[in-house]
Amino acid sequence: MLSDILYLINNKKIQEARDRLADLQTYDIAEGLEALDQHDLVKVFRVLPKDVAADVFAYLSRDFQKSVIDSITDRELAEIMDELFLDDTVDMIEEMPANVVKRLLMSADKETRVLINHFLQYPDDSAGSIMTIEFVDLRKDMTVEQSFEHIRQTGIDKETVYTCYVTDDFRKLYGVVSVRTLLLSDPDDLIEAVMDTQFVYVKTHDDQEVIGRLFDRYDLLTIPVVDNELRLVGIITVDDALDVIQEENTEDFEKMAAMLPSDLPYLDTGVFVHARRRIPWLLVLMVSAILTGSIITHYEDALAVLPALVAFIPMLMDTGGNSGSQAATLVIRGMALDQIKPRDLLRIIWKEIRVAVMVGAVLAVFNIARIALVNQSFVLALTVGLSLYATVIMAKLVGCMLPIVAQKIKIDPAIMAAPVITTIVDAGSLVVYFLFARLILSI
Amino acid sequence: MLSDILYLINNKKIQEARDRLADLQTYDIAEGLEALDQHDLVKVFRVLPKDVAADVFAYLSRDFQKSVIDSITDRELAEIMDELFLDDTVDMIEEMPANVVKRLLMSADKETRVLINHFLQYPDDSAGSIMTIEFVDLRKDMTVEQSFEHIRQTGIDKETVYTCYVTDDFRKLYGVVSVRTLLLSDPDDLIEAVMDTQFVYVKTHDDQEVIGRLFDRYDLLTIPVVDNELRLVGIITVDDALDVIQEENTEDFEKMAAMLPSDLPYLDTGVFVHARRRIPWLLVLMVSAILTGSIITHYEDALAVLPALVAFIPMLMDTGGNSGSQAATLVIRGMALDQIKPRDLLRIIWKEIRVAVMVGAVLAVFNIARIALVNQSFVLALTVGLSLYATVIMAKLVGCMLPIVAQKIKIDPAIMAAPVITTIVDAGSLVVYFLFARLILSI
Repeated sequence: MLSDILYLINNKKIQEARDRLADLQTYDIAEGLEALDQHDLVKVFRVLPKDVAADVFAYLSRDFQKSVIDSITDRELAEIMDELFLDDTVDMIEEMPANVVKRLLMSADKETRVLINHFLQYPDDSAGSIMTIEFVDLRKDMTVEQSFEHIRQTGIDKETVYTCYVTDDFRKLYGVVSVRTLLLSDPDDLIEAVMDTQFVYVKTHDDQEVIGRLFDRYDLLTIPVVDNELRLVGIITVDDALDVIQEENTEDFEKMAAMLPSDLPYLDTGVFVHARRRIPWLLVLMVSAILTGSIITHYEDALAVLPALVAFIPMLMDTGGNSGSQAATLVIRGMALDQIKPRDLLRIIWKEIRVAVMVGAVLAVFNIARIALVNQSFVLALTVGLSLYATVIMAKLVGCMLPIVAQKIKIDPAIMAAPVITTIVDAGSLVVYFLFARLILSI
Repeated sequence: MLSDILYLINNKKIQEARDRLADLQTYDIAEGLEALDQHDLVKVFRVLPKDVAADVFAYLSRDFQKSVIDSITDRELAEIMDELFLDDTVDMIEEMPANVVKRLLMSADKETRVLINHFLQYPDDSAGSIMTIEFVDLRKDMTVEQSFEHIRQTGIDKETVYTCYVTDDFRKLYGVVSVRTLLLSDPDDLIEAVMDTQFVYVKTHDDQEVIGRLFDRYDLLTIPVVDNELRLVGIITVDDALDVIQEENTEDFEKMAAMLPSDLPYLDTGVFVHARRRIPWLLVLMVSAILTGSIITHYEDALAVLPALVAFIPMLMDTGGNSGSQAATLVIRGMALDQIKPRDLLRIIWKEIRVAVMVGAVLAVFNIARIALVNQSFVLALTVGLSLYATVIMAKLVGCMLPIVAQKIKIDPAIMAAPVITTIVDAGSLVVYFLFARLILSI
């Protein structure tokens, strides 16, 4: 996509190249750059106007940011650092190797360096670590007209000007006022008269999960971040909140697939880190599955009498696991979206029982018919069918209850997902299966 | 939470109750109302100022909206319909029973009724079905000052004023201009001079998945929706985009747990619908698992010679399934977030092979040691350990490749998740297991 522009640059038509770049969206330039080799990438990057360069830089993935840093001069780097939003700078520093971090910090002016160090002390995934310190602050005794003047002078970024924050001499947050309210007010009105003193805020140490939910609930464009003395220290904008929401979703997907969660994109993560994130839960679940195996050993004589029984074990186990994880997924997701609360436990159990009765009936009837036809044994068919029915009901119950119980005892419900439930249901389904086999087939 | 306010209302202190309600956030009022019984709910609802009532109403879940509709007069309903944003009205109408829809449509004025009917024709989950028609449109030959006047007069909602759209007599979209740009421009500048003619837009029939991605990429506050003639017909605001993103995530969670996806919250969905969403994939996967069972039947003689082999089947199958779904989940999520593209296939395969070699080694060594100790048979331990190692490698490969292949042949990758992979890996792991058993144990 950038090849035309690269051609212009190679032919020294720099201004024309710059005009063409000006017509593109930041994201598209960044994506285009990532498709070039390092040499061409830096060539195009250097043609970008300073402010655009910083924006594009913030969009590049870590590897490409590193390439750029490695290829530009200290002065160019200082210019970019100057234009970058502080939260983007901090994000980057947190993930760069030590030698790059050193160069980055050296390129920042002293004030920024102090701020960066301050930011790095906030816990990972806290409001403090994702906030930006660029915002518009007003005083109670300003008029609406003066406020507009102040906005024009500070001017910052598109997401950050539309909600203004009213603070006092000690930076304590008094109220918020939107640009829309300012526009609809009389120019001579005092801010005190038009500001809203009821507002949603978070503290620097609040977890980002809370922040995502607040944006979702209250349809906010920005949320103020305050310290323990309620002094305004930063804001979080909706575009960052959106990233947070996606990150939290990714973490849930990972936990539900029995992995330790991570912030880094798949391709940016090393092989060792991938392995370390996957082994712990695999080990835990493997040990549990070994216990399931011992149930089989316990009923070895039954299997010796009727070896055909073994063939239905995978089907029973898989169907049980899938039935359980369906219920678990719905409940976990419902809780993540605040649509399900622990107090709904009984309603959910009652719903799942009825669903399981229906689902189990369809699956059991299908199986009984099939086995009766293929294996020519109605008692065997009945054994498998009834075991399957009981397994589905048990799986749905375990699947819907475990996440809620986890939430109640302050364990992340996402961890109680498919893998854990499969392992539990496996054991249960085998016990049921052998009990029915004894009862119906008298072995 | 609303009990104090209810007390005030019961004691006829209506104005005091109204003042107290004015201090609360819309979402909090809605949540408070849902905790009351229908009688009290309507009592508090009636005290709300008209515009707040409409906002709160939009936040209520469908069941409670229905309660309110059933308990208020036609005139009250007409007032709410008048204040509601059209997209919220349409959302509601799509999910209400026929008799309620009839009353709703009768309460709307004629113009709104025409618009609603028009909206209902857009396909589910298309841009047209989620857009709002309340936006600020400017003309090229307006000045900045005139534009501010126009914004003051139209006034609309906080999310909808900050990006203004420049159209001509035929409603064709020419450019966009943010309120921030207007604030920073000279009052006498023409809109033509300050507007941006390079902008991102969607068409009415574009899928909402696309819209979520565009907001994520370009950090937008609103996106314009145009028809085939590029005429502006509506806008989508970031708060609706956020809902869309959460909905898309929920759908992925559901597909990955082998369910047909749905828009409705868990508790609002009937038992029959729940069953209908879960049965199809359970049936498909059950039939595949039956094939797996037939592999066992095929090797029945091996099991007859060494019954101890059966006890390790659940462990092998579960570990394989979990290993595969780890890889699949990471790849599916990476593709959903645009971090992984089909062209990365080879890089991913190479990464997964190395991860699998490490993960498999840890699990296999653990197992060999355990079985050698407990079962006092090194050859049995070796058989299980090697089978497990091979299973993990195979599972990781299948897990990372299937979603990418699905994407390439235009199948939703989320469908290739844990359940499908488990079923495939089950069969593979059993074959490997019996082959190793023959080779090492010579049975």
